[in-house]
Amino acid sequence: MKNIEIGKKIKIIKKDFEIEGFIIPKPELYEEDFILVKLYNGYNIGIEIDENTKIIELGEKIKVGEFPKAEIIKNSNLKNISLIHTGGTIASKIDYSTQAVSPAIQPEELFYIFPELKNIANVERTILLFNIASEDMLPKNWIKIAEAAYKEINDKEIFGVIISHGTDTMHFTSAALSFFIRNLNKPIILTGAQRSSDRASSDAKMNFICSSYAAISNIAEVGIVMHASSNDDFCYFHRGTKVRKFHTTRRDAFKSVNDKPIAKIYYDGKIEIINKNYKERNENRPELKAFFDERVAMLKFYPNSRPEIIDILVNNFDIRGIVIEASGLGHVATNNEKSWIPYIKKNDNTLFAITSQCIFGRVHPYVYTNTRILSNLENVVFCEDMLSEVAYVKLGWLLAQEKDLKKLKELMLTNFANEINYISYYED
Amino acid sequence: MKNIEIGKKIKIIKKDFEIEGFIIPKPELYEEDFILVKLYNGYNIGIEIDENTKIIELGEKIKVGEFPKAEIIKNSNLKNISLIHTGGTIASKIDYSTQAVSPAIQPEELFYIFPELKNIANVERTILLFNIASEDMLPKNWIKIAEAAYKEINDKEIFGVIISHGTDTMHFTSAALSFFIRNLNKPIILTGAQRSSDRASSDAKMNFICSSYAAISNIAEVGIVMHASSNDDFCYFHRGTKVRKFHTTRRDAFKSVNDKPIAKIYYDGKIEIINKNYKERNENRPELKAFFDERVAMLKFYPNSRPEIIDILVNNFDIRGIVIEASGLGHVATNNEKSWIPYIKKNDNTLFAITSQCIFGRVHPYVYTNTRILSNLENVVFCEDMLSEVAYVKLGWLLAQEKDLKKLKELMLTNFANEINYISYYED
Repeated sequence: MKNIEIGKKIKIIKKDFEIEGFIIPKPELYEEDFILVKLYNGYNIGIEIDENTKIIELGEKIKVGEFPKAEIIKNSNLKNISLIHTGGTIASKIDYSTQAVSPAIQPEELFYIFPELKNIANVERTILLFNIASEDMLPKNWIKIAEAAYKEINDKEIFGVIISHGTDTMHFTSAALSFFIRNLNKPIILTGAQRSSDRASSDAKMNFICSSYAAISNIAEVGIVMHASSNDDFCYFHRGTKVRKFHTTRRDAFKSVNDKPIAKIYYDGKIEIINKNYKERNENRPELKAFFDERVAMLKFYPNSRPEIIDILVNNFDIRGIVIEASGLGHVATNNEKSWIPYIKKNDNTLFAITSQCIFGRVHPYVYTNTRILSNLENVVFCEDMLSEVAYVKLGWLLAQEKDLKKLKELMLTNFANEINYISYYED
Repeated sequence: MKNIEIGKKIKIIKKDFEIEGFIIPKPELYEEDFILVKLYNGYNIGIEIDENTKIIELGEKIKVGEFPKAEIIKNSNLKNISLIHTGGTIASKIDYSTQAVSPAIQPEELFYIFPELKNIANVERTILLFNIASEDMLPKNWIKIAEAAYKEINDKEIFGVIISHGTDTMHFTSAALSFFIRNLNKPIILTGAQRSSDRASSDAKMNFICSSYAAISNIAEVGIVMHASSNDDFCYFHRGTKVRKFHTTRRDAFKSVNDKPIAKIYYDGKIEIINKNYKERNENRPELKAFFDERVAMLKFYPNSRPEIIDILVNNFDIRGIVIEASGLGHVATNNEKSWIPYIKKNDNTLFAITSQCIFGRVHPYVYTNTRILSNLENVVFCEDMLSEVAYVKLGWLLAQEKDLKKLKELMLTNFANEINYISYYED
């Protein structure tokens, strides 16, 4: 098997199916005994090779770009949705021996991969916005995604939008969309895959199908729809401002923080609301406020961390807002030679937004003497139970609209997209 | 009730008990209808006031410092332990109207608070090392704690050590002790409280009692022993290198990461091992390697983060090791104008240790093109499933012993205290 050349056309005969296609290189992660085959429809499929698998070499070699485009048949009984592709594992990028740079899966090809989609919704438009790994996403990309999504939800024919996105920074993008599009009237769903769609154990299919149900649902929120457990039974609809990636590889990597997910979305389309605090589909006219002042930064406090970095951020980079990932209830070093207090105090033109590196729970300005010293500074705001990532996006968004420090503090504690729960769900 | 003056001597009569003491101010957190009383033995107790509570004013006023010391009676049938106090909520520090600066609870007074202790172990020594809020702990304090604990475990009469510690950075200290004391032969237990011992719902008592059982147990590991759930049923013995604080206020804030806790420790002393991979009590001669090169830093990657900070850390602070909290499997911006790659590459005298801000799971150098670009750099090491906090402590500890970059990389991937699980527990 190992002797078959990359690019060769082959036929694989297994107990329950036969396929034909071209051998393409497999990612290094997959050390199992399997091969990766590009089918004629363009889909890459990973197949395990055991003693009962028969492989027949057919002689020809692959020609990239000659795969047929899928023909899209609209069903007038179904609702219309839009797909916006931004990159990531769901549109798996394999480096072919031919050095093809186009994404392995074209939006149209999703219909071949997930034929069930045809019974859920009509994909009215597929927009290949860009193909960026999520670690390479920047605020300017968030703005482009917001603009594209805004355009789609303004089309009366469109019931909802699905955005495919790399998982690593998906929760930053979901926060950005939550703030950038005001008066939301329809679902905007971010989804992705922890394991590429070439892989047998891929989560791409279920995530995509559940996202389709979410996109035509009654939940007019920006949500992340991903596996709820490592079983293929249902996905969660996580609120875009209350979710975070918690595992490098598990399919159920995303967890809601300080909030319940809004709903369970089952494979068969059943939707079970588990958090009634959500916005229903409505006739509002959405408003686009897609801007971001890049003069924001995040800083994590830790033992012996250097508060001088604050001066450098402010002086060298003109940073006007810093989200501090403080310890516990909102602590930074206060009574030792590495105290952050003098540095926060003197940079009084910069707003310091205090969140907790505990992730779960809320910061509290008054429990301990040290937090009281910090919270008494005029350029400090304790961000309740907001995630640090969300506070970062929010602060950049607000700085683009408001320069006055006092007003900025008020706005940081104003709920724009349920980013704050004044009573946290996850407390006892 | 609100009219009784702070400092006044009172008697409180409730259905099932009577107490006498002095009224002291209560922390702002507690908005319930209760008062805080300093008993004659020095213990502060919070008491809820309801319609059945009778309060009698006795006229006298408090004199700080006049509380009697507890008399310690040794039971020769019980094992001896040592207590090292470093500060934090468990030794609650109330700002009295009298501005008393000494800790509210003296080590000796613990016997009054938790009389059950007398039936578990003899506290041979109590050492008030310092009284530092955990956000003010520095590597030099870790060294002092390690030296004190080392001294105790070298005493043949001592079966184990309990260290009381603020919870915020307890997991940094537990990692430090795990590395600083080699060939450990007895339990070293860190514990603390999420809610001060003055409070009715305090976790201090159970944490302390379970820690006492842990200290005389067969588990010769540095552990964090804290509530396992928000019920008062049992504590977990978390491995010192595989644990993190995950909630600002919950009693079960500590969770093991990428590893099971070693054991459940019940209130009644029952110990249930749930992770067989632990070191048993032994006759080894422990070795003290308590040193830390402070030229280490942590940096979290996020969208639009400024890689120039790397240059500043290296040039202005002579930083030789940087733990990067990368995204997902170990990503940093690679293909955009904020790419971290050139900055990591040029600072080739500094080692970059890659961990994941997902927290759960392991980093992987080869899955994606971007991680391959990063992991191919000679001054980069992917830290498997190590916690970023643990990698930070480990890197500072190793830098104090080894300057050669290649050897340092090898050492970062060498298991010293089960900080790496080559197969993670929490994967599917």
